[in-house]
Amino acid sequence: MEPHQTIEDESRPSITTVTRRIQRLSLHLTPPPPFQRSSQLDMVTCAKARKLEVDVTSLSSYMRGNHREIQEKIFDFFNSRPDLQTPIEISMREHRELCLRQLLGLVREAKIKPFKYVVEDPAKYFAISEAIGSVDISLGIKFGVQYSLWGGSVLNLGTKKHRDKYFDGIDNLDYLGCFAMTELHHGSNVQGLQTVATFDPITDEFVIDTPNDGAIKWWIGNAAVHGKFATVFARLILPTRDSKGVSDMGVHAFIVPIRDLKTHQTLPGIEINDCGHKIGLNGVDNGALRFRSVRIPRDNLLNRFGDVTRDGKYTSSLPTINKRFAATLGELVGGRVGLAHSSLGILKISVTIAVRYSLLRQQFGPPRQPEVSILDYQSQQHKLMPMLASTYAFHFTSKYLVEKYSEMKKTHDEQLVGDVHALSAGLKSYVTSYTARSLSTCREACGGHGYAAVNRFGTLRNDHDIFQTFEGDNTVLLQQVAGDLLKQYKDKFQGGALSVTWNYLRESMNTYLSQPNPVTARWESADHLRDPKFQLDAFRYRTSRLLQSVAARLQKHTKTLGSFGAWNRCLNHLLTLAESHIESVILAKFIEAVQNCPDASSQAALKLLCDLYALDRIWKDIGTYRNVDYVAPNKAKAINKLTEYLSFQVRNIAGELIDAFDLPPYILRAPIAMQSKAYSQYTQLVGF
Amino acid sequence: MEPHQTIEDESRPSITTVTRRIQRLSLHLTPPPPFQRSSQLDMVTCAKARKLEVDVTSLSSYMRGNHREIQEKIFDFFNSRPDLQTPIEISMREHRELCLRQLLGLVREAKIKPFKYVVEDPAKYFAISEAIGSVDISLGIKFGVQYSLWGGSVLNLGTKKHRDKYFDGIDNLDYLGCFAMTELHHGSNVQGLQTVATFDPITDEFVIDTPNDGAIKWWIGNAAVHGKFATVFARLILPTRDSKGVSDMGVHAFIVPIRDLKTHQTLPGIEINDCGHKIGLNGVDNGALRFRSVRIPRDNLLNRFGDVTRDGKYTSSLPTINKRFAATLGELVGGRVGLAHSSLGILKISVTIAVRYSLLRQQFGPPRQPEVSILDYQSQQHKLMPMLASTYAFHFTSKYLVEKYSEMKKTHDEQLVGDVHALSAGLKSYVTSYTARSLSTCREACGGHGYAAVNRFGTLRNDHDIFQTFEGDNTVLLQQVAGDLLKQYKDKFQGGALSVTWNYLRESMNTYLSQPNPVTARWESADHLRDPKFQLDAFRYRTSRLLQSVAARLQKHTKTLGSFGAWNRCLNHLLTLAESHIESVILAKFIEAVQNCPDASSQAALKLLCDLYALDRIWKDIGTYRNVDYVAPNKAKAINKLTEYLSFQVRNIAGELIDAFDLPPYILRAPIAMQSKAYSQYTQLVGF
Repeated sequence: MEPHQTIEDESRPSITTVTRRIQRLSLHLTPPPPFQRSSQLDMVTCAKARKLEVDVTSLSSYMRGNHREIQEKIFDFFNSRPDLQTPIEISMREHRELCLRQLLGLVREAKIKPFKYVVEDPAKYFAISEAIGSVDISLGIKFGVQYSLWGGSVLNLGTKKHRDKYFDGIDNLDYLGCFAMTELHHGSNVQGLQTVATFDPITDEFVIDTPNDGAIKWWIGNAAVHGKFATVFARLILPTRDSKGVSDMGVHAFIVPIRDLKTHQTLPGIEINDCGHKIGLNGVDNGALRFRSVRIPRDNLLNRFGDVTRDGKYTSSLPTINKRFAATLGELVGGRVGLAHSSLGILKISVTIAVRYSLLRQQFGPPRQPEVSILDYQSQQHKLMPMLASTYAFHFTSKYLVEKYSEMKKTHDEQLVGDVHALSAGLKSYVTSYTARSLSTCREACGGHGYAAVNRFGTLRNDHDIFQTFEGDNTVLLQQVAGDLLKQYKDKFQGGALSVTWNYLRESMNTYLSQPNPVTARWESADHLRDPKFQLDAFRYRTSRLLQSVAARLQKHTKTLGSFGAWNRCLNHLLTLAESHIESVILAKFIEAVQNCPDASSQAALKLLCDLYALDRIWKDIGTYRNVDYVAPNKAKAINKLTEYLSFQVRNIAGELIDAFDLPPYILRAPIAMQSKAYSQYTQLVGF
Repeated sequence: MEPHQTIEDESRPSITTVTRRIQRLSLHLTPPPPFQRSSQLDMVTCAKARKLEVDVTSLSSYMRGNHREIQEKIFDFFNSRPDLQTPIEISMREHRELCLRQLLGLVREAKIKPFKYVVEDPAKYFAISEAIGSVDISLGIKFGVQYSLWGGSVLNLGTKKHRDKYFDGIDNLDYLGCFAMTELHHGSNVQGLQTVATFDPITDEFVIDTPNDGAIKWWIGNAAVHGKFATVFARLILPTRDSKGVSDMGVHAFIVPIRDLKTHQTLPGIEINDCGHKIGLNGVDNGALRFRSVRIPRDNLLNRFGDVTRDGKYTSSLPTINKRFAATLGELVGGRVGLAHSSLGILKISVTIAVRYSLLRQQFGPPRQPEVSILDYQSQQHKLMPMLASTYAFHFTSKYLVEKYSEMKKTHDEQLVGDVHALSAGLKSYVTSYTARSLSTCREACGGHGYAAVNRFGTLRNDHDIFQTFEGDNTVLLQQVAGDLLKQYKDKFQGGALSVTWNYLRESMNTYLSQPNPVTARWESADHLRDPKFQLDAFRYRTSRLLQSVAARLQKHTKTLGSFGAWNRCLNHLLTLAESHIESVILAKFIEAVQNCPDASSQAALKLLCDLYALDRIWKDIGTYRNVDYVAPNKAKAINKLTEYLSFQVRNIAGELIDAFDLPPYILRAPIAMQSKAYSQYTQLVGF
């Protein structure tokens, strides 16, 4: 079946469908629109096509996680409390205080106690985090600093004595805390941290010191104003009896009180500076910490992976500094899982606002006919429909990652640990970069009205921006994925087992060793292009090929440039490999989700989205496929054409598809506190 | 010459060169860095190469426009006036007032009187606009609203009586004014505006009315607080004696006083609402205007292209509504020229900040060696070096456009008018989209420190964002370019003359008709790839091919879908065509600039940048070239490899290249008013 034939042969959407969509869109808007628009929306569709019937309730229930109830509790709470809503203009100082009040309200009034879920039910923890991040991203991050970073470090890097001492205070917010890892000169390179913790055997204490300006702890959330404690990452220094006098045991984590629990005064030896205004997230008080011989009891070493005895001996179940360091950082992977999840939540909000506006906004039209919805323009479909498809694709992959992470926290299965590490690094990086770009695209797609602060794109973009950097810079994380792939590749040829996510490589590497099939390279029917096998093969072929070629290049360059130089010489290649791999995983999970969907109408809608996701990605990288003749020229054209056609098909159910995200009106409509007089009067008229 | 051979054969940069670069970078920073970094910067270069020697003074003087003096006067003025510097945290209300004080200071204290340059010396006007936009983009926009939009409409659409009456008041800011074109329901579709101006022959007045909510003038700069007048775009309605009773003469511009000159009270019949907070540009007071039977004298019609006599007869030198509309909008093209120019100015600032930081920031390194500058990473070069090359490319094209525009304002040559219209639409669209994306990339490239508000990426991005939308939405403008190309294409085959910018099509359309040459498709030497002829041919081939194919598709689809439907069906194709054309023009202008450069060392540097610009663009669209076998697979690989190599070469002179932009320290360093305590103490340490 040729796609362009289909486009012209099928009939228009019926008036009832259009009316139903309008009604559903209008649910987000109160009061009802002051004038009738449906007659205008039912106009020229620029190409005709059979429209899928989508049962929003069924699709929505297939999408929804298990923790909707607690999310609704959170929305209801903030909806009922205008005093806790973030106004559109607020000073940094006020925003920080409001953010703390929001957090206290959540825990002490709405009685959401999230701390136990960090370890026991991560899926529930992430659901809470997503919901409060939708209220104000600053709140989501302050929440994450408290429970996932500061709290998480105590639970995951400490032992029972720490849990017993700190759990309640962290949970009920009496013990607000910080996660003091990053230094002025060392962000990505955590092993290069310079803060030191020297054991003093006489007093049985550690002495924390900042040896130089570059070692000042920087960007530390909760430090500027609210924190009482900090988990400080520092090199553990032990006195020895040899000629060197000391031994550097590598980076460890220590609990350091920074402010007095009662008076909130900064404690002696601690210097705190305010990092000042940021592009966004100004509700979070980031500060700089400098330590001058700050003494803490030996017990404050978070000693799960390494400990110091009373007489200054180092003990650990792990043999080397590198292994202990890896275990320490490994426990922090939950932050990445959470960020991927929250970033996806922000993408859903943004896509929903942009699609809704584009359905209702009209501009230009055929001569002597009403103006058309801007989503009827191919260019607008091109901007937003693959984005909508990607949002669905990420949804199922993120769900999978959260499941695997929860399983890992229960079983501590070693293979699962490796799998979750690489996938969380890859997905965090891929999704946050995608969301950042999409927020800009959505603003543009909504033109001038998208620039009104009340319509949220600005705040979302400014707050979300740093998701690409914190908890691991995206460029650095992708290199970890590539490194992991290369390790797996090497293992495979040494007969080792591949981890679950990587398993496909076993098969496709073999396929790769043969040349692309010149016959299938010419197949261009829609049935073939929409076959999951073709799509997955194409994605995996690309990954396998990139993997094999970069491995060969690395080997060659290592001889002349050394391993660091060789890696750098192949860096663009390695990043492409990592992205390609993540895309393969995303597609595989999406295809699975389509296959497992029990409701036929929802399945058909998901299949459409999945095909659009796959073909759009193939088309965007068509040069790679053409270069090895994996697809013939005419097949490339057919892919482009089908992608445009699928975008058009998705446009016809776009209203239903955004409804199925099931975002509550509270986070879609600008909160009361944000609305300007002019906009609150005319939002319906402009489509927001 | 194979690029990878070159990379490994050549020698390291000398210590002196590195030291010199550091010293130059340090010029931006006062006081001098507290510790010596040069020993660290002279470390591992991850690949070795001969470094070009660049004479910054010579390159800079080749780049510089004729109006540097007035720019420096502006910087000196604001540098000397901390009370007029925009602090990092400021409420919308205060920002609006500050912005007005900045503007008054510029005109009444620094004695910059820009209004006469709008028509007489546009290059000087744009230079002023660029400089004040660097101080605060809000100020640049408020300035543009006053002089280019409100002032420009009076000069360009009015006649001598208007000039005589309003010139001085506009120039000295007594008459602050608005440009009231956009309505709530009509932005891009200006011909769809619904505000009416009905002539009343009894009183010899026009009556301005807002017929419905959708026709409220929206986003009008200077309206919310400061404006005294507005140029209002409305349909001119004349009473007739026929059965219809009235005749709609189409959209015209009228001067409407909106506030009392003395009391500043809103005048009767005028309702003003505040559009509220925007994502950026909150120093500009955008408002909404509604008119209820507002009467203005007949003389307030800006009557250059159409007039009404005392007895209500319409007169015009132009025959049709469409031609008058085109002439009216045509006079507003200066705004687009200015936006492209200002956007480029913002790109220069952003690239400079990011490159400077990347040179000084170090992270990771080979085992047991000092950490390396992050600009030594291939991935960072990939992000920033083609961007630096593009900035240079845009510089010469924008300079060309300003020259052509100035010439057009003098000669009113009709062919020049067409040329300037299309090029300004294309360049405004292309450059503002590019700058918007680059601002995000630069922030990411600077990691966490890029997120500090003091480092400007946030404000620049938020303020610049709407450049993609106002003065013509980019997607709409690109369609105008495509439309113009198609018209020229049609004319060509009817024997008509092609305008200057389009002239290349004559030649390359012929080349296109033949198939790509299978021999040259395999040439892959660096000499060939760096030959301007190969590069330009490749760009123009692509444009010609897109033009021919879209023309054929349009013709085919028009039969079944009508012209509106056919256009929409080919929209993605048309947008690609327009971008491809603009890129061809940019490359041609860059190649010319390289050829005309009198200094050999500057010429070599520019040649390097020009090659990087060209090959990076070809590589980004390699699918298109591969699809028609314009380049063979190995040639595609060679292009990729050479692009990476050129990025590396440009990295080695990146310090000199940003210095040659000659941006004053004032706009590179965060103004005093912006600096937080922590950052002002440590900026040298983090590289800003």
